[in-house]
Order: sequence, then C-alpha cells, then structure tokens
Amino acid sequence: MNILIAQSGGPTCAINASLVGVFKQGLLTEEIDAVFGSINGIEGAVNDEILNLKSIIKTNEDMELLRQTPSTMLGSCRCKLPDYEENPEMYEKILKTFTTHRINIFIYIGGNDSMDTVVKLSSYLKSVGSDIKIIGVPKTIDNDLPVTDHTPGFGSAAKYVAATVQEIIRDSSVYSIPSVTVIEIMGRHAGWLTASTCVLRANGEEAPHLIYLPESSFTPEQFIEDTKKEMAKHKAVVIAVSEGVSLQDAADFQSGAVDNFGHKYLSGVGKYLERLVADKIGCKVRSVELNVMQRCSSHICSKTDIDEAERIGRHALKAALDGFTGKMMCFRRVSDTPYAVTIEMTDACRVANQEKLFPKEWISPEQNQVTDAAIPYFLPLIQGEVNIMMKNGLPVHFQRPLQMR
Amino acid sequence: MNILIAQSGGPTCAINASLVGVFKQGLLTEEIDAVFGSINGIEGAVNDEILNLKSIIKTNEDMELLRQTPSTMLGSCRCKLPDYEENPEMYEKILKTFTTHRINIFIYIGGNDSMDTVVKLSSYLKSVGSDIKIIGVPKTIDNDLPVTDHTPGFGSAAKYVAATVQEIIRDSSVYSIPSVTVIEIMGRHAGWLTASTCVLRANGEEAPHLIYLPESSFTPEQFIEDTKKEMAKHKAVVIAVSEGVSLQDAADFQSGAVDNFGHKYLSGVGKYLERLVADKIGCKVRSVELNVMQRCSSHICSKTDIDEAERIGRHALKAALDGFTGKMMCFRRVSDTPYAVTIEMTDACRVANQEKLFPKEWISPEQNQVTDAAIPYFLPLIQGEVNIMMKNGLPVHFQRPLQMR
Repeated sequence: MNILIAQSGGPTCAINASLVGVFKQGLLTEEIDAVFGSINGIEGAVNDEILNLKSIIKTNEDMELLRQTPSTMLGSCRCKLPDYEENPEMYEKILKTFTTHRINIFIYIGGNDSMDTVVKLSSYLKSVGSDIKIIGVPKTIDNDLPVTDHTPGFGSAAKYVAATVQEIIRDSSVYSIPSVTVIEIMGRHAGWLTASTCVLRANGEEAPHLIYLPESSFTPEQFIEDTKKEMAKHKAVVIAVSEGVSLQDAADFQSGAVDNFGHKYLSGVGKYLERLVADKIGCKVRSVELNVMQRCSSHICSKTDIDEAERIGRHALKAALDGFTGKMMCFRRVSDTPYAVTIEMTDACRVANQEKLFPKEWISPEQNQVTDAAIPYFLPLIQGEVNIMMKNGLPVHFQRPLQMR
Repeated sequence: MNILIAQSGGPTCAINASLVGVFKQGLLTEEIDAVFGSINGIEGAVNDEILNLKSIIKTNEDMELLRQTPSTMLGSCRCKLPDYEENPEMYEKILKTFTTHRINIFIYIGGNDSMDTVVKLSSYLKSVGSDIKIIGVPKTIDNDLPVTDHTPGFGSAAKYVAATVQEIIRDSSVYSIPSVTVIEIMGRHAGWLTASTCVLRANGEEAPHLIYLPESSFTPEQFIEDTKKEMAKHKAVVIAVSEGVSLQDAADFQSGAVDNFGHKYLSGVGKYLERLVADKIGCKVRSVELNVMQRCSSHICSKTDIDEAERIGRHALKAALDGFTGKMMCFRRVSDTPYAVTIEMTDACRVANQEKLFPKEWISPEQNQVTDAAIPYFLPLIQGEVNIMMKNGLPVHFQRPLQMR
C-alpha cells in the first residue's frame, strides 16, 4: 500500500519536520511501498499532481536539511473542501487519485481549515465504503487549535519572537531621551504568540512593559494612560501588541486615509498605535512589524518544536496503520517541570473551524499584561537549538523539486 | 594615565565588541590605570557622566557576553560637536572632564558624524597645547565610510539580511498563484546592505530576482516592466530594495495621504512599491520591512565581523599609545580568497561627513541587479558563527548598569 502526505495553510518552521516524520515512519514500515507527496495541499490530490517523495528526499542529509527548512516543501493551499452536496466531483477526483496510486492513507498537515478537510474527506470515504484512512497533523504558529496542548510551529515562532523582542529592547534603549517602541506580532484572534514574550522575564528582562492581546479588553484612551504610567518608570518603553487587538478606532483609522492610487490604507495596528503615541504623547516613537519572519525564521527554531513536529508526524502514520481515521494528533502535557508530553489523538471535528483563545486567567486585571502563571506553559516550548547546517556563512535550505518552483 | 571610550550613532551588533577590544587592550597595557566609559557618546564627556568600566565588566564571561550583545552598552547620541567658534564652552567642558579624570586617550566608536567629532576635538586639543589623543573606530551597518574596506557591524547586518531574505524566499513560494514580495532594506544613500543579498547566489538561490539601490537609476515604469519580466520566468518574484531608492513618485505618494490625526503618511518605499504592483499588475503582493532587526539581530551575527570589531578596537588603543591622534582605524583588504585584511589608519578628516557609495561597476546595465563581481567582496564578511550563550532557550544579553536604564 502507499501513503500520501500534504501540507496546508500558512508556512511555519516545523511543517517540514512533520513531513519528515511521516516519511521516515513510512520507510520503516514494511507494508508501505511508496510515500507520495501532494503538491499544494489537497489541490494536488484533486488534480492528480503528486510525486514520489523518494525521488526528491534521497539521503539522511536531505531529511535533516528538510527538517530545518522553513515553509512547506510540497507547497500549500488555502482551499477549503466544499460540502459533498455542493461539489461531489471534487471528492470523486480525490478518490480517483487515491485509487490510481493505491493510496491507503492520507496524512494532512495543517491548521483548523485543514482539519475541516480531514473531517469531510474521512466521512465521504466511509460513506462510499472506502477503507482509506485520513489523519490530521496540527501545525500553526498561532497555537490556537483546541484539544492539543500546543501546536507544532508555535515553539519556533515564539523563540524567534522572544529573541527578537529582546534585541529590540536593547536597540530601543540607547538614547538619553524617552521613547516608546510598539512591536506588532501575528495573531488575528488568539494572542498566544504575543503573550509568549512574557518568557523574557525568565532572563531578567522587565520589557515588554505592556502586552495587549485580542483577548484583552482595550481602548485607545486606556492604552495612552498605560503608556504614560510606564514612561514614568522606564526611559524606553517597549510594548508588544497582537495584530488582532480589538480597536474600534483603528478600524475607523484604517478606512480614513486614501492613497494616490485611490486605495484605502490598510495600516496595521502597530502603525496606528505609533501615530496615536505621537499625537497624544508626542515623544520619540517607532513601530516594528515582525511580519512573515515570525513564521519562517528557522535559523533560530526551537529544537523542542522541531523534534516534536517530527514525532507527531510519525505517530500520525502509526495511528492510520492502527485503523483510525478522521482524527487529529495532539499533545497532552503531563508536566511543565520536567517538561513531558504524550501524543494522543482526538476527533478532527473537535478541532475543525474552532479556535482556542489565550486563557483570560493569564491576562492581568488591568488587561495590559500576561501574568507569571503563563511562563511555565511557554518556556518548555522554546528550549534547545537545532544544529543548523551552514554553507558560505548562511543556513542551507532543502531545495524544492524544479517542477514546483 | 586613564582612557575614555564612547559609542555613538545607530546601534549595531559589533559596537560592543569594539568596546571590549579597547577595554581588553587597556587591561593588558601597563601604563594604563583605568578605562572609563562615557555615557551616551560625547554627551557623557561634556556632562562628566562617566563610569569606570571595571565596575561593570567584571569577568571574562562578562566580556564574552558583551561582545555578543547588540546595541551600545554605554548608550549613544546623535550629537554633532558644534564648531569651536560657535560653542567654545562645550570643548572646555570636555577638556575639564578629561583633566578631572586624568584621561590621556579618548576612543570614539561611531560613523561619519563621530569622525567629525574626532577631527574637531583633536584639532581643539592640539590648539590648546594638550597632549590628549583622540582616535576613531568605525562602525555602521551601512558600510558607507570612505577609506576603510568595510565597517564593523556591516558583516553581521548582511548575514542577518541574507539569511532572512532566504527564509522569506521559502515563505513566499508556497502557493500556486503568482506573487511578488518586496523586501525593504536599510540604506538611505548607500545600497551596500541591500546589494549584499547577492551572496545568496553562492548557495544556489536565484532570488532576489531584482535588486534596487539608491545608486541605481530607477523609475516606477521600469520597475513594473522589470517585475513583469521576472513574473514570466518565476512564480514567486522576490525583490530587494533600499529604503533610499530614489523615487520621485514615491515622494509624491508619501505626501498624498493624510491620516485621521491629520498627519501626512510617511510610508516606506516597500509599501509604495507594494501598492504600485497591486495597482499596475494586480497580483498577490506583500512588502516586508526588515526594520531595526537589521542592526540588532546578534543571535545570527557574523563571527568575522565580531572578531574584527574587537581587533580594530585593540589597534585603536595601540595607535593612541603610539602617539597618533585625529585618526580613524580602517581595514585594508589584502585578498578575497583566502580572506585577509590588515588594520591601518587614516586621517579622520578623510572620513568625517563623507559617504562611500556602492560602486557603479557592480550594478547591472539594466540598473536592477548586482553583478557577480560583488560576491567575493561580500562573502568573507558574513563568515562564521559566534557561539551564542543561551539561557532558558534565549540568547543571554549583557545587562547595562542600573543607572543607565
């Protein structure tokens, strides 16, 4: 029998490690003949664009390189499967691809949209009497999937963000005049990544002095009051803010300006708060957007994250071989110190289209900080460094097959 | 006798390594009693805000930690010394501080503004018959100082930029639809840092497909033509652009929009080009600004850069002890392969207020790329990795003395 793997959603530093996990386990499993990869997520299965992974991952060094290469080697998609009733043809095409290539197991690495695909596809296959197993492997830097303790990809993103925020703290505090630095961090609805900057306290940093999440209640007036209070205590105030922080005024602001092309300005919340500080306080102020670097800076990935991502990939294949389908693999935390997790599984329908928000009890009563209680949760996830392969002073990346560039 | 060190201008990853170089050489020199640090550049000398570095750098571990801590441990300033005739009092204050603390040597680590201070101060001291020696140590991520082959701080910035651009290349190429990614890199007048992304070719990357510098001649029309041509060849086009690229239209654009506070929008060139692509081509497009991370991401600093920064600091003190004054230390490249530099010196007046632009002969005739001839210049500067000290999964930084926070 053969298996098929696909990757979906936004890139992370760990999604290729999960691919390697499934691939390695496939090589070790006697009854598996070939491990195929689907190009651009489920689209490859629909369009019969698949390739034999052995033709591109040829050595142990390739596997190690792929583990530490960011983004999705097989490409990705934002495609959500329509309901069967809406578009039965799409399901039939997938089944045809599976049948043509003798695929018995399909492993889908992705976020909550991808878990929706796992649910729909596994239900369809059952309904037509197919024995093909569908298993989901979680990934997202947002850490917002229910049931699982955390998601592969998050730990590396959190490590990059914390290390970078620490460097920006150094950078921002060199001049003798007071200043405010606003750092905008990814997270539209869930503030996990922004909240994780609290780990800097473990190394003695006082900043970020303020942390705002989509889950905090927030007004521009309170933000200015908070900032003024911190400025009374610190010369260089550093503020971490989620891109999705709920700012009624920011929405107004974004629709206010029109550029020379006649387009509306869609300025981020960091830029908005920079201008608010300039207007209401008038001090030196700068905003910094960590942008896509948050999800692709594998040169400072978390070893814990990469190792776990590979491990959960292996377990996904085992679960499928054990006969499970329509499930997502997940981590259950056994202990913070020493850190220990087990890998279990849950019905993918418990995850599909759901979001796990940052717990209210870890937000300070003033709604502008994360409490110390969150630190033991985050800290284990950013531990350890991967021995990055270097050439010419630069990390080496696994190069995708030519037909995909 | 005693010596005084100060740091000035924009932070880099290497400016503390130069401080360590001077400090270590001071410890080793029999005739030197104390090594003082001036707080916030020349301001500390004016205001008699100086501290004995032995009171804060206490161990070998402290020195190693400081070497790998970004930004300026002693703070910085943007203060340019006025001419003596304009403000003799300022010069007299500095001399008073020097006399009070028995300072015989002042080492100023900074860019072309700081070299102006070296020139003015050394001339003043000679004119009043003082024997105090003033030596400049170069630093800037812009690499735009004349005479010296390159500047400490540049290699680390170039290593961060190239590694990050490579990661953004991976990130940008996952979807099946065509896309353009514009990466805005620091450099107002000199494009060295943006140009240095050509080193990725040494590792087999084709991107950045287009590189635009302040030194290239450039029109928005040509940019769109260039981009369309690259889109015909590559699914995901990645473009590196200096913040200072000369765009008459961009200036118009920046003054066009007004926000809800009534302020003009000062959008960067990356954002401008993003909107231009959206308007004229209409494909998926994103801009990314590498912002202050370019100058402070010491977690991926260049070992060559950090080692050279320390070495040039040591040499600066030796030059002062040899009786030189009004000089800036500089690198002379002996060979690209194997890489070899000697440390020499030049009159600081040859550097003060001057800029060294990226050579026209390394810009492609089409004005949209850097030629392969530039690669051997850049490559040695980003070689080697510093063994970064980690604690709790994060780099450890040297913490500034409490009175400076």
